Amino acid sequence: MTYEKSVLNIAIAGLGVVGSEVARQLIRRNDALSAAGGSRLQLVAVSARSKDSDRGFSMDGIQWVDDARDLAKIDDVDLVIELIGGSEGVALDLTRAALAAGKHVVTANKAMIAHHGGALAKLAEENEVALTFEAAVAGGIPAVKTLREGLVANEFSRVAGILNGTCNYILSRMEKTGEHFDDVLVDAQKLGYAEAEPSFDVDGIDAAHKLTILAAIAFGHTPHFEAVKISGIRDVSAVDFAYARQLGFRIKLVGVAEPGRVPRMETCLLPLSSQLAKVDGVLNAVAYDGMPIGSVLSVGPGAGAGATGSAVLADVIDVAAGRACLPFGRPMAALSDGSKAKNGNGPDTAFYIRLTVIDQPGVLADVTRILQEHDISVESLVQQGRAPDDVVALAMTTHECPASALEAALSALSALSCVKASPVSMPIVPSEQEG
Amino acid sequence: MTYEKSVLNIAIAGLGVVGSEVARQLIRRNDALSAAGGSRLQLVAVSARSKDSDRGFSMDGIQWVDDARDLAKIDDVDLVIELIGGSEGVALDLTRAALAAGKHVVTANKAMIAHHGGALAKLAEENEVALTFEAAVAGGIPAVKTLREGLVANEFSRVAGILNGTCNYILSRMEKTGEHFDDVLVDAQKLGYAEAEPSFDVDGIDAAHKLTILAAIAFGHTPHFEAVKISGIRDVSAVDFAYARQLGFRIKLVGVAEPGRVPRMETCLLPLSSQLAKVDGVLNAVAYDGMPIGSVLSVGPGAGAGATGSAVLADVIDVAAGRACLPFGRPMAALSDGSKAKNGNGPDTAFYIRLTVIDQPGVLADVTRILQEHDISVESLVQQGRAPDDVVALAMTTHECPASALEAALSALSALSCVKASPVSMPIVPSEQEG
Repeated sequence: MTYEKSVLNIAIAGLGVVGSEVARQLIRRNDALSAAGGSRLQLVAVSARSKDSDRGFSMDGIQWVDDARDLAKIDDVDLVIELIGGSEGVALDLTRAALAAGKHVVTANKAMIAHHGGALAKLAEENEVALTFEAAVAGGIPAVKTLREGLVANEFSRVAGILNGTCNYILSRMEKTGEHFDDVLVDAQKLGYAEAEPSFDVDGIDAAHKLTILAAIAFGHTPHFEAVKISGIRDVSAVDFAYARQLGFRIKLVGVAEPGRVPRMETCLLPLSSQLAKVDGVLNAVAYDGMPIGSVLSVGPGAGAGATGSAVLADVIDVAAGRACLPFGRPMAALSDGSKAKNGNGPDTAFYIRLTVIDQPGVLADVTRILQEHDISVESLVQQGRAPDDVVALAMTTHECPASALEAALSALSALSCVKASPVSMPIVPSEQEG
Repeated sequence: MTYEKSVLNIAIAGLGVVGSEVARQLIRRNDALSAAGGSRLQLVAVSARSKDSDRGFSMDGIQWVDDARDLAKIDDVDLVIELIGGSEGVALDLTRAALAAGKHVVTANKAMIAHHGGALAKLAEENEVALTFEAAVAGGIPAVKTLREGLVANEFSRVAGILNGTCNYILSRMEKTGEHFDDVLVDAQKLGYAEAEPSFDVDGIDAAHKLTILAAIAFGHTPHFEAVKISGIRDVSAVDFAYARQLGFRIKLVGVAEPGRVPRMETCLLPLSSQLAKVDGVLNAVAYDGMPIGSVLSVGPGAGAGATGSAVLADVIDVAAGRACLPFGRPMAALSDGSKAKNGNGPDTAFYIRLTVIDQPGVLADVTRILQEHDISVESLVQQGRAPDDVVALAMTTHECPASALEAALSALSALSCVKASPVSMPIVPSEQEG
């Protein structure tokens, strides 16, 4: 390569699978990556837990520091790649110190950006450096860039996503095989799709971090994780997949952000015709709805060294090329305070309800009367099989109604003598906007 | 808005549906779009065929020129949006003149970029101005930005796309209803999905323009339309959709670009499991396969004022924000000459074959013998129904073989007395890479 304008000195904090992949790419494909950024990308320092592991690249000429925070003190480091993880602790200390020292920061840390993104973006702006986090949302899918640049001319009406590959794998498999959550989780752990401690994934926290960031960019406020309504996938019953499909839906953990409404990360039903409903297995997907575009969908790997590494390196190249965006796409002065946003429950929602009832005359009349009393109208209903005087499932979808009406109706339904178990309900997320 | 660093003066050439939409957005949503670009975006001049049409925005304060080429002569125009279309003529004259005059150019003109992209990029580089064309490829999907920036750290092994909504609509509907091409085309014309003169769409030219541009960016050469192998969708028979599905495939017009291989825009079979196969109706989609990412897919509206307008405005905002990329992602000196690329037919391809044969003993033996003589092995085979001594269809898929072997085998098969019509064949495009 004769092309070399200048040099960008890079430090990596955290050499797990992603950090090691990024280091290897920076070394092995240095010419191509440097050419793309228009500067020589030079890995000059690293920090990790153990110095002695073989990570598939040579440490020759690369400075080692034991405490990652010290990377911010190395004068000739221009950019720190933070891959330690965790919303607090060393990752946050290092990011603050690096920005304050006038170094660019590229991070894959969704928890940190979801919790402290506003304060960190302010620090970046004050120090006139970049803070980028493409890898924090939906892994290899360039979702942040798409929202912040590719679709920047749009007024977003909704950003919805399948943002956790572990959950999507578990739900896809439950649907396909009829297995129960616990069994699929154990298998997912064996296959490496789920962590030994799975709660960050299956309780929706990880996905909600990503949704927090997408909502902030789409609607121009600082990230505010505390506002997100979160429910996970632990309580999904295997039987609901079949009823959902009969009614024309699939069950997915979907994050939905809409203007002026609390972002929700919930297990819900998606119409079979929806683009998001077609996304199976460990993939992630983001559907951007806006004016004038209509709807665009991106699908790709949400995790893994290659996907995350691709996103980290794209950010590094943007910084090197001098085209890194402001962290949330606009100056701090133009961002509203996420914690002060007036978020409501927004428009009504359609719901899926499954009741376990005694199969006897008059049951359907009782159920529909109670729904009617709460101003809830049934859109579609299926009863699986017949079993006189035994329990059967009654699955239905409603038209849009307030969540409070649904809650009241469910509690009245629970009180009926013919209703034998707690009613199950899930919101229905409408299809993407037509183009 | 108090935010106003500077002003970017914009001229629009061509006020059809897209041009009018862009003008309306620039006027009605000026504050939001200007804030995103960090400069006041000011529409100062326009040119179109007729001055008197009502296009939903006021011409007050906007200069009119009769000859679009004159827009390049207006001193205070900083950026020209070219929406005239056509690879030659006024569009090309204006683009050249504007770039030479030191004005940025944003265009949606796929034909012009596919034919003259290299020379125009050179002119832009010499004059240190931007030449951007997000709207030229896959409408509202930010495919150019994804390839050039979001996934820039990857070495692409394949870029494949459904790049013409008209064709995808026609094929989706033929599959669903069993109607013939001609009938669906007439209906698509009535619905406004196809032009009165449909050949640009149904013969694959429009899609091949887009593929030419994607291939150039992905593989670092100047666009070279002449190299693309193109076939359209006119010859697809309604019956093939059902056989394809039985064999596990769908039929789509797909563009495929791979390193060192002739880009192909062909009607082909996609495995049902492939992400691209799931894209129905007037949508466009692009699947990017590379290392280290694995595979990412984008789906969205490929045409229409809103989608194209979104892409045009994103380019304008990139220019305003000073972050527009080089046209093909790298300096001219680092691009190879597309017309001199050593393109081969590359690795072997699997094929779908349908034969119309007399249903009599020995036919299958004759057919398989001929295939074997040409070193072609059958992967899967279906014979629909039975009709002794009458004609039946024999549909099959082969394992990978050279295109020349297939051609020779088909000609030998045609010569068999039991084969009653010209054999039908289509290539099979493999699924995207696993993540």
